[in-house]
Amino acid sequence: MKILSFKLNGEVKFGPKVKKEEAVWDVLAIQEELKILPSFPKQIIDGITLGFDFVEQTRRLVEAVKNTAEVNQYKLAFSEIEWLSPIPRTPKNILCIGKNYQDHAKEMGADAAPVDLVVFTKSSTSIAADEQVLPIHEEKTNSLDYEGELAIVIGKKGKDIPKKLAYDYIFGYTIANDITARDLQDRHKQFFLGKSLEGSCPIGPYIVSKDEITDPQNLTVVTKVNGEVRQNGSTKDMVFPIDELVATLSRHVTLEPGDIILTGTPAGVGKGMNPPTFLKAGDIVKISIQGIGTLSNRFE
Amino acid sequence: MKILSFKLNGEVKFGPKVKKEEAVWDVLAIQEELKILPSFPKQIIDGITLGFDFVEQTRRLVEAVKNTAEVNQYKLAFSEIEWLSPIPRTPKNILCIGKNYQDHAKEMGADAAPVDLVVFTKSSTSIAADEQVLPIHEEKTNSLDYEGELAIVIGKKGKDIPKKLAYDYIFGYTIANDITARDLQDRHKQFFLGKSLEGSCPIGPYIVSKDEITDPQNLTVVTKVNGEVRQNGSTKDMVFPIDELVATLSRHVTLEPGDIILTGTPAGVGKGMNPPTFLKAGDIVKISIQGIGTLSNRFE
Repeated sequence: MKILSFKLNGEVKFGPKVKKEEAVWDVLAIQEELKILPSFPKQIIDGITLGFDFVEQTRRLVEAVKNTAEVNQYKLAFSEIEWLSPIPRTPKNILCIGKNYQDHAKEMGADAAPVDLVVFTKSSTSIAADEQVLPIHEEKTNSLDYEGELAIVIGKKGKDIPKKLAYDYIFGYTIANDITARDLQDRHKQFFLGKSLEGSCPIGPYIVSKDEITDPQNLTVVTKVNGEVRQNGSTKDMVFPIDELVATLSRHVTLEPGDIILTGTPAGVGKGMNPPTFLKAGDIVKISIQGIGTLSNRFE
Repeated sequence: MKILSFKLNGEVKFGPKVKKEEAVWDVLAIQEELKILPSFPKQIIDGITLGFDFVEQTRRLVEAVKNTAEVNQYKLAFSEIEWLSPIPRTPKNILCIGKNYQDHAKEMGADAAPVDLVVFTKSSTSIAADEQVLPIHEEKTNSLDYEGELAIVIGKKGKDIPKKLAYDYIFGYTIANDITARDLQDRHKQFFLGKSLEGSCPIGPYIVSKDEITDPQNLTVVTKVNGEVRQNGSTKDMVFPIDELVATLSRHVTLEPGDIILTGTPAGVGKGMNPPTFLKAGDIVKISIQGIGTLSNRFE
């Protein structure tokens, strides 16, 4: 199931994408009006906490109206809604893995990927949505860069999670652009400031529940800038695979439902080009991951 | 006004310290039962958003019962309550400044303090309370260290805050211990993991509203381990003063009410001793800052 968050008449809502249509089911309205379930979460984060039951409950709500005469009132065309990031606000900062692909570590000037996990965070105020126009921040940086990444959505609270149980704590996957001001990243040593400018963490368009992704460790990650392929990697090339990321992170930090982990970017960022080529106003960055979709943002 | 958070019968509450007594006013109970004000915040974060009005409203609630016969039912002895950190959960990760005192930068092996702000974060799950017994994490680190710091509590949402308006965005001050696993801090390059272990950010005991601190840039910061003075600094020695911290941070990250900024630690941490001396089970660390109080934690 592909779940998205959106705004309708100023209200924050969520629902599953209608299969093969550019539309979303307004499951909160279905439940509110038809009271099909004894209870149903009001917020996506509360839903995620229920694990796969959330997917099942959501399906039941859709089934109840799918073939009725009133079907249309609960099906909202994408053109009617304002898109939000599937998790508009994470419980803590977004957790990010640095240099998790050998070729990217090398293009950034390292001899090899790090032996121990490099973890930094992006402020939760930097989250943006698919299709949102993002600031180029030209008064703050001259080297804004993209990083296309597979993002993990945590579904269950946990610490000291053993590697073999890691997937039990994952609710699903989405796409993120870990936008980085390279000059600020270098100048301030620790990455946080250069990674946290407003709009520097678009996430979306959907959370895909994990049952729909057969092998998250074998997905192509393609980033295009104005149609030109810049990154063309595969999650099979991660230095630290997903189960190890969850295990190591949770050894140090308590993970919570709705936490998002950016798993690192493959080679092909603007800084690694010859000459380095950074984002400019008017650029459109599209990141596509197999089985999830495409995250698209224009800069202005 | 010194404001603290606490638990009473499982409920999270807050209130001002009773002057010259080891007790707190249960202002939520006063308002709920006597309905003195048209409205009053249910959570400390919502109160902080009101700025100095919050202090005034809280005072009015206390004034209403201070000299009545029923005074005792609203005055809770510290022995009756479970202490919480004054902000048990910050809206984003805790914002931390690295090497903001020359002598500390030097004891950490640098030639001088950095020219540009070093900013990292601690997970909001690492927040702990005054008097809380904290884990020594001996299975995860062999070099847990203390860092006594003045902490700023943000009162108003802002970005690109000019230096001269910085204090308008500050609600008050508290004390923090930026507990750090030195081995993890080094090993993982970016500081986040080594700074985010459970219990590694005790904050408290109170938020002191800014009207009570005449000059936040002239406060002694004293850290004692088992009674021995280890750090004895003054906030006048900050490399980047408070107004500059707020201005520079807000240029990169949107600040929000309830955000906490740790302003850096003076010289005298365990890593800087000869030989380096780290925390062990049974140690008691007390950090005292003039005009605020003492934050005390035992390790186990």
